[in-house]
Amino acid sequence: MKKVEDYIINIPDFPEPGIIFRDITGVLNDAEGLQLSIDELYKLLDGVDFDVVAGAEARGFLFGMPLAYKAKKRFVPVRKKGKLPRETVQKEYSLEYGTATIEVHKDDIKPGDKVVIVDDLMATGGTIRATIDLIEELGGEVVKVLFLIELEGLNGRKLFDGYDIESVVKYPGA
Amino acid sequence: MKKVEDYIINIPDFPEPGIIFRDITGVLNDAEGLQLSIDELYKLLDGVDFDVVAGAEARGFLFGMPLAYKAKKRFVPVRKKGKLPRETVQKEYSLEYGTATIEVHKDDIKPGDKVVIVDDLMATGGTIRATIDLIEELGGEVVKVLFLIELEGLNGRKLFDGYDIESVVKYPGA
Repeated sequence: MKKVEDYIINIPDFPEPGIIFRDITGVLNDAEGLQLSIDELYKLLDGVDFDVVAGAEARGFLFGMPLAYKAKKRFVPVRKKGKLPRETVQKEYSLEYGTATIEVHKDDIKPGDKVVIVDDLMATGGTIRATIDLIEELGGEVVKVLFLIELEGLNGRKLFDGYDIESVVKYPGA
Repeated sequence: MKKVEDYIINIPDFPEPGIIFRDITGVLNDAEGLQLSIDELYKLLDGVDFDVVAGAEARGFLFGMPLAYKAKKRFVPVRKKGKLPRETVQKEYSLEYGTATIEVHKDDIKPGDKVVIVDDLMATGGTIRATIDLIEELGGEVVKVLFLIELEGLNGRKLFDGYDIESVVKYPGA
């Protein structure tokens, strides 16, 4: 039986020499791979008490929404600045070059909400760390953070001390 | 029993006077609203023979992926230029101000693939028209186009003559 990693397309030396790019479109573009990816993420929620799934634009939407649907929960989109029509809270964070700002509708998370954050890939972890900060600013409690893929060599976990983080597929390098 | 439109948040005079912005985050951020939105879209696929769901970044991902999951089909992401790691086909299209370019991996659609396109909202229809063109360029057949919301007053349908288009919620205005 195939595993999720069997559907990931590995692109050597992209975007630069020595880096292997992990392309999830191979998972999505196979009916069994897609089912498996969602079902494996869902298994990691076994026994977790939560109210809402949050996912960051754009690839967090890909996995967060099917999970919310399957778990019969709410979904809160975390978006790049300027895309949400109502009042938001915002967080700026560092990228390799420069900064980015993400935001969440102020009333989308209620104080006491138990939140599961889902994303495709943990690299340096900056976007998801900013997402945690926004959810906590609104009074939500982050009870779990799920990644389909984790690049262990980039030490993203150092940003998430004390949080419950799990990944379906782990690669030792970057 | 509530309908999908009961969960849509209507924001009057946004982004300009006289326009009512239809905010789908109210649908997503309610467990029953989210279930209903996906289930209503899924009903519109009853009897449709298809291989793959395609959705355009970012809001097409929100509805396309749960539908692909539920239907046990593949999902192909249509992305803004520069986000996909492998060889793509690209299409530029007009926006209200300027242009945008979207792309699809060249080998994500195979000749003869029967494709369902899903998006949150049909306004002027430009993004989805460009998506159709890309899928057809790769030899795919667009068998259905689904929208959660259709703004009939913007006449987006005039771009889709001969295609099978359906929407869950229709508003007569813009």
